[in-house]
Amino acid sequence: MLGPQVWSSVRQGLSRGLSRNVRGWASGEGKKVDIAGIYPPVTTPFTATAEVDYGKLEENLHKLGTLPFRGFVVQGSNGEFPFLTSSERLEVVSRVRQAMPKNRLLLAGSGCESTQATVEMTVSMAQVGADAAMVVTPCYYRGRMSSAALIHHYTKVADLSPIPVVLYSVPANTGLDLPVDAVFTLSQHPNIVGMKDSGGDVTRIGLIVHKTRKQDFQVLAGSAGFLMASYALGAVGGVCALANVLGAQVCQLERLCLTGQWEDAQKLQHRLIEPNAAVTRRFGIPGLKKTMDWFGYYGGPCRAPLQELSPAEEEALRMDFTSNGWL
Amino acid sequence: MLGPQVWSSVRQGLSRGLSRNVRGWASGEGKKVDIAGIYPPVTTPFTATAEVDYGKLEENLHKLGTLPFRGFVVQGSNGEFPFLTSSERLEVVSRVRQAMPKNRLLLAGSGCESTQATVEMTVSMAQVGADAAMVVTPCYYRGRMSSAALIHHYTKVADLSPIPVVLYSVPANTGLDLPVDAVFTLSQHPNIVGMKDSGGDVTRIGLIVHKTRKQDFQVLAGSAGFLMASYALGAVGGVCALANVLGAQVCQLERLCLTGQWEDAQKLQHRLIEPNAAVTRRFGIPGLKKTMDWFGYYGGPCRAPLQELSPAEEEALRMDFTSNGWL
Amino acid sequence: MLGPQVWSSVRQGLSRGLSRNVRGWASGEGKKVDIAGIYPPVTTPFTATAEVDYGKLEENLHKLGTLPFRGFVVQGSNGEFPFLTSSERLEVVSRVRQAMPKNRLLLAGSGCESTQATVEMTVSMAQVGADAAMVVTPCYYRGRMSSAALIHHYTKVADLSPIPVVLYSVPANTGLDLPVDAVFTLSQHPNIVGMKDSGGDVTRIGLIVHKTRKQDFQVLAGSAGFLMASYALGAVGGVCALANVLGAQVCQLERLCLTGQWEDAQKLQHRLIEPNAAVTRRFGIPGLKKTMDWFGYYGGPCRAPLQELSPAEEEALRMDFTSNGWL
Amino acid sequence: MLGPQVWSSVRQGLSRGLSRNVRGWASGEGKKVDIAGIYPPVTTPFTATAEVDYGKLEENLHKLGTLPFRGFVVQGSNGEFPFLTSSERLEVVSRVRQAMPKNRLLLAGSGCESTQATVEMTVSMAQVGADAAMVVTPCYYRGRMSSAALIHHYTKVADLSPIPVVLYSVPANTGLDLPVDAVFTLSQHPNIVGMKDSGGDVTRIGLIVHKTRKQDFQVLAGSAGFLMASYALGAVGGVCALANVLGAQVCQLERLCLTGQWEDAQKLQHRLIEPNAAVTRRFGIPGLKKTMDWFGYYGGPCRAPLQELSPAEEEALRMDFTSNGWL
Repeated sequence: MLGPQVWSSVRQGLSRGLSRNVRGWASGEGKKVDIAGIYPPVTTPFTATAEVDYGKLEENLHKLGTLPFRGFVVQGSNGEFPFLTSSERLEVVSRVRQAMPKNRLLLAGSGCESTQATVEMTVSMAQVGADAAMVVTPCYYRGRMSSAALIHHYTKVADLSPIPVVLYSVPANTGLDLPVDAVFTLSQHPNIVGMKDSGGDVTRIGLIVHKTRKQDFQVLAGSAGFLMASYALGAVGGVCALANVLGAQVCQLERLCLTGQWEDAQKLQHRLIEPNAAVTRRFGIPGLKKTMDWFGYYGGPCRAPLQELSPAEEEALRMDFTSNGWL
Repeated sequence: MLGPQVWSSVRQGLSRGLSRNVRGWASGEGKKVDIAGIYPPVTTPFTATAEVDYGKLEENLHKLGTLPFRGFVVQGSNGEFPFLTSSERLEVVSRVRQAMPKNRLLLAGSGCESTQATVEMTVSMAQVGADAAMVVTPCYYRGRMSSAALIHHYTKVADLSPIPVVLYSVPANTGLDLPVDAVFTLSQHPNIVGMKDSGGDVTRIGLIVHKTRKQDFQVLAGSAGFLMASYALGAVGGVCALANVLGAQVCQLERLCLTGQWEDAQKLQHRLIEPNAAVTRRFGIPGLKKTMDWFGYYGGPCRAPLQELSPAEEEALRMDFTSNGWL
Repeated sequence: MLGPQVWSSVRQGLSRGLSRNVRGWASGEGKKVDIAGIYPPVTTPFTATAEVDYGKLEENLHKLGTLPFRGFVVQGSNGEFPFLTSSERLEVVSRVRQAMPKNRLLLAGSGCESTQATVEMTVSMAQVGADAAMVVTPCYYRGRMSSAALIHHYTKVADLSPIPVVLYSVPANTGLDLPVDAVFTLSQHPNIVGMKDSGGDVTRIGLIVHKTRKQDFQVLAGSAGFLMASYALGAVGGVCALANVLGAQVCQLERLCLTGQWEDAQKLQHRLIEPNAAVTRRFGIPGLKKTMDWFGYYGGPCRAPLQELSPAEEEALRMDFTSNGWL
Repeated sequence: MLGPQVWSSVRQGLSRGLSRNVRGWASGEGKKVDIAGIYPPVTTPFTATAEVDYGKLEENLHKLGTLPFRGFVVQGSNGEFPFLTSSERLEVVSRVRQAMPKNRLLLAGSGCESTQATVEMTVSMAQVGADAAMVVTPCYYRGRMSSAALIHHYTKVADLSPIPVVLYSVPANTGLDLPVDAVFTLSQHPNIVGMKDSGGDVTRIGLIVHKTRKQDFQVLAGSAGFLMASYALGAVGGVCALANVLGAQVCQLERLCLTGQWEDAQKLQHRLIEPNAAVTRRFGIPGLKKTMDWFGYYGGPCRAPLQELSPAEEEALRMDFTSNGWL
């Protein structure tokens, strides 16, 4: 397997040829960040008494840092961000910034329900070291989250953010798809650099890539289950829960796609679908954390109300890995 | 129309005969609160710069206080609670406590995503004057919110709450129905006194009333659109957004149902369905606040990302009131 | 319990006062049929080799005929009509006409996917004795079944039908709700007399009754689970699968509602919710037929692909009846 | 562009290497048909008086026959099969058989709601010339269409069919996904050769290919919008409404995928997404037929209740083609 450095140059040569640097648009130089690549959405470790375990977080990062990831997503849905206080959210970003290799990107989930709170969280996350902000759609009032409302929300956040903004659509959690027409409008904002789409509809991903082809706008697949298909349609990477446990394999799938080895990519992709479903839709974060325990990371408990897996669930989870040759 | 005092005795005589007093279970006397009656879910007024306008809040309460409501719900979905900071949430409850008549109930929405945060918010709300806590289902991880998880969550909250707990299921916002079997289990908890169900499925409401008939457990309809049907099936009241603008009429519907005047109740209910849909499902809080402006209350703007109605929407909203004879 | 004759006069005095006679609009006299009352949607008995068992059909009708039903629905969803050939559909209607008491109404389900086929089936059913046609929404192309398309469909059918037409909306089977605005438009057609709504949203039922109050238009609840609530909102009867097994009880619920005995109605309604769910949503026609076997009717097998209940399902089905005191 | 003959050999060399011949399994030789390739789902032309226009059908076939399709699907959802009588269904198949080139495959949609009717239709279609039967999931009783029921249904049909069976899952029409576990079980039946999946979830398509890799089982994408992604995941072709109007382009996309020209494939795929959505999900068969008129085929009217496009819809339809350079 390639090391991170070599990997980085392969990636640069193969991705959409964007020459973005890792710096904010607000710096005045108008340069954007290139977000192409694979990211694990880092989980938040808790102690037995449900305190954030920053030591375990750092240990996980040290291990993950040896893999050729483009960077790390902190406080995506897998980070249990809705269970963290504002200060915990910032402290987690700060600790990850310090624990991770310097040459990687840190995408921090800064979404809140209100526009104002999202702006404030985004600014704060920039201050503690985030390279870009990944902003989930507000969703509690989904019946009123029209394209116009979402465009207004994201425009305001992007206007005021010192770091580039990545749109984040995750209908399994929010019950809401960021509409394609809203994505198209937002892609023209100079401080919005891309999107993470976790919905799994690759026709939609293809359409977004197509409609935004004249903008500097990149699309990341939100899950390893449709990573290869997303590459085929023009996505440039993925934020994959599965990369927390099968990181090398997800990065290998990236490499096979970028180098056009589609047959091998297909075989590998096939073997990742069930494990990926197991740590996402099927068993959620409790499943992901349990699997992390198996693969040498610290998973540990979730905060309530998320519950531990039952023995039967744990057995089914294991089967999804063993039947595909990963355990 | 009956005044509040007379009204209260009518209600006591007619509701399910529960002799609950307004005091917490945790007081050691084992007495529960009787929540039967009508509640407006109070909106949170904002200034033009999106600050909470506590003065307007108090003015609204003074006007609403002249109507024969059983009490007030603060920070239900119509209170824009996901847009408020923790301290704003508490301050709003505190101000409402002071502004409202003494002989009414204050139900405060204390739900958060994590169990721990919900417990803390519930305790704090009790300290600033809430009579009972209305706890919405956590929902971001809805795929893992099994009956077991929800039972665990609510049990923990009820165990630690100094005030009685009211379950709150609102699938239009949460994408999640609190399962009937979980409601049944939770109805046996000594500190859980009832439920607000906003889903609109009155068969379900009837089943919940039926299954919990041996517990001291009361069900409130979550919307005026199915208030009469809910009374027919055994609900004891309602938390109705529409009561913020047509409060007298909603209370009259209550009286007609409680006194068995079903024909008149039907006629009144019919005329409330469209206005109710307009200020809830169809136009949301922006619609409700706009209507409040028309009816002599302070509505004002919502916090972003909620947007003002378009002129066409405002026209349609008005039509839903005029065509039923309310404007 | 009242006998059918007495019952009929009670019903006439209590229902919405419509003086409709049982004759078609096309007779030129402009008189409509009054469809108020309770109907079992008759099941289609099959032999062990999946032939229609007309003898058992007649036996069931003879037993059902002793109950104070307003009439019978043939080839609603519970009649397995999608599994019958056109000639079987007509033969079943013909046999029911002969086996049922003369003074009852025969509503025959004549819906097909195409407008033309629906017209032809409606005409044929009139010829073999149907009093009115109950026409389900076409649904295979539900993405194109706009209000305009459905209005066109039903208008054509009603124009050409020699017997009155009853609209039929059953989203659990069709994935489609007949929109309220379409119902309102269609309620003005002289040959459309009412609607069976099986969706269970009584707010919607109330709105339909309200919007069509100036037309001769009657609404029937499509299931016993929300029958009482539907009466409360202005429906005039119900087509209830449960009436195939607890027919006397469903008729008693009708009587309690029509005579304003709401407390007793509520108690009875409560005990019918679970059995009703068991023979509809939960276990479908196989559950209904199994229960018919228990209650002295002929249930028998369904046509494939409908499968028999598993032993565990049968046990759960029985529990839904025993726990409510019906077995 | 390659001609049909050359094309066929390219396809044989590139598809999954299955050496299936075009003959039924029931012939006793145990050889299966290879269904790899592109198929237009042929529309059924109607005259102004809604009669089947067999002449126009043949004309369309003659034109379509010049393109390098693997064959033709008759009476998929785009064939308006639910609007045809049984004898029309058979006559259409018969006419297509005669009008189409001899060396192509004829897949005939033979699904009905009952198992017995499906068996009979399948046998009849074989008699009038179908090479394989494409059997849609029964759906009216979707609440009871468990894996067990669907396995029973398809097994019976495949047991009794003289021609190979292709499973057909189209949730937009049926409200039902054929479950992956049922597909896996059915893939082991000697007379079930593959599946058309129109759901658009390519993760699911990948999983099906993966789980059935040890069987002679082929998957066809059910729409051009996700054709490239489906090839990437292991599908061997597609049944694409869009191929009725942009047939050469869809076949070119096939060729680019089969020859590993993924970059060009991506560009072409991108330009097909909006036109494809326009003639399927967005405007349905009326949109497809209108477009056929534009592209030199006979589209004509649909049977009622399907309605013509409004002028505004027609304009939007045209825009979806012009904005992508196809008109």
